[in-house]
Amino acid sequence: MNCCKEENNIKVKLRSEEEKKNIITRLNRVIGQMNGVKKMIEENRYCDDVLIQLSAIDKSIKSIANLMLDSHMHTCLIENIKQGNYDIVDEIVELFKRFQ
Amino acid sequence: MNCCKEENNIKVKLRSEEEKKNIITRLNRVIGQMNGVKKMIEENRYCDDVLIQLSAIDKSIKSIANLMLDSHMHTCLIENIKQGNYDIVDEIVELFKRFQ
Amino acid sequence: MNCCKEENNIKVKLRSEEEKKNIITRLNRVIGQMNGVKKMIEENRYCDDVLIQLSAIDKSIKSIANLMLDSHMHTCLIENIKQGNYDIVDEIVELFKRFQ
Amino acid sequence: MNCCKEENNIKVKLRSEEEKKNIITRLNRVIGQMNGVKKMIEENRYCDDVLIQLSAIDKSIKSIANLMLDSHMHTCLIENIKQGNYDIVDEIVELFKRFQ
Repeated sequence: MNCCKEENNIKVKLRSEEEKKNIITRLNRVIGQMNGVKKMIEENRYCDDVLIQLSAIDKSIKSIANLMLDSHMHTCLIENIKQGNYDIVDEIVELFKRFQ
Repeated sequence: MNCCKEENNIKVKLRSEEEKKNIITRLNRVIGQMNGVKKMIEENRYCDDVLIQLSAIDKSIKSIANLMLDSHMHTCLIENIKQGNYDIVDEIVELFKRFQ
Repeated sequence: MNCCKEENNIKVKLRSEEEKKNIITRLNRVIGQMNGVKKMIEENRYCDDVLIQLSAIDKSIKSIANLMLDSHMHTCLIENIKQGNYDIVDEIVELFKRFQ
Repeated sequence: MNCCKEENNIKVKLRSEEEKKNIITRLNRVIGQMNGVKKMIEENRYCDDVLIQLSAIDKSIKSIANLMLDSHMHTCLIENIKQGNYDIVDEIVELFKRFQ
């Protein structure tokens, strides 16, 4: 079975319902944090308190990215390398730089 | 005039309507990006494409933080130092570490 | 041929003379930058000028790490996955977090 | 007394002998770590082990930068703001971005 394929020129990744639910729950939590920051601005809350919240959001985003990268490497990366497709290695090195 | 004060034990920062509107517009844009990522997960989009979006969101968050820090230092920091309150310096060093 | 093996309980990676020379040249350049910073401190140079040099050193270190990660993934990672050893994937996810 | 001044068109910062010694000791420790990494490359040590050392060096560099920024803000920043020179605020916002 292939986890990654192309459908109508768009690359897709088949994820289990559990994995999708887990990621979406975490994304919703970050959206909740973002709405909390909006409320803080509307209520004229002190800059340092807002900035600490923004740094927490930054950490949440990275944590979701790490979770997805872990899954990506255990599925798509292994599958592609076994099939002799090594372009995905460069893709991951680029991600490494983006999140530095 | 003081930009920072305490009201009912909550520290507040007086911001112009323009500044508030600017920050909230940017926060709404990030929430829009987050909802875009949720849609990508629902549509089984490829991991690398999702991760690139998450790295863009990470950059947007940092850009909002830098904007707020800039304003914070030009108002609260200067005001506090002129009044002889130096605790705010340690607060900003801590922020520096949080966003590293 | 295996690029990675264990000798006397120490994991080794066979690198070409060219790759070793390239990495060592870059490491020497960073050591040169570090000695430059020491000289700046001895000469009482202004903090901001020293800090800008430290941020340049930080970028050089990351650039060497990215170069080595790229090589590591194109050799050890591919080789291990082809042999069915997937522990290396977790190792790389950990590196991803360390450099974030 | 002024901690920051210009001598022959070069900006200087007067540091205590203790502070200079502390920073130079830390810089020497990082140079020692860098020489350790060079030795690892010469001995063909495994990529992941080398990369973990590079991430430790990265953390040491940031730790020295944070120490210097803390001192910079408690001396030069406060002194300049009290004298009505606010350009230093923009300088520090730029440093904030450089180390993100």
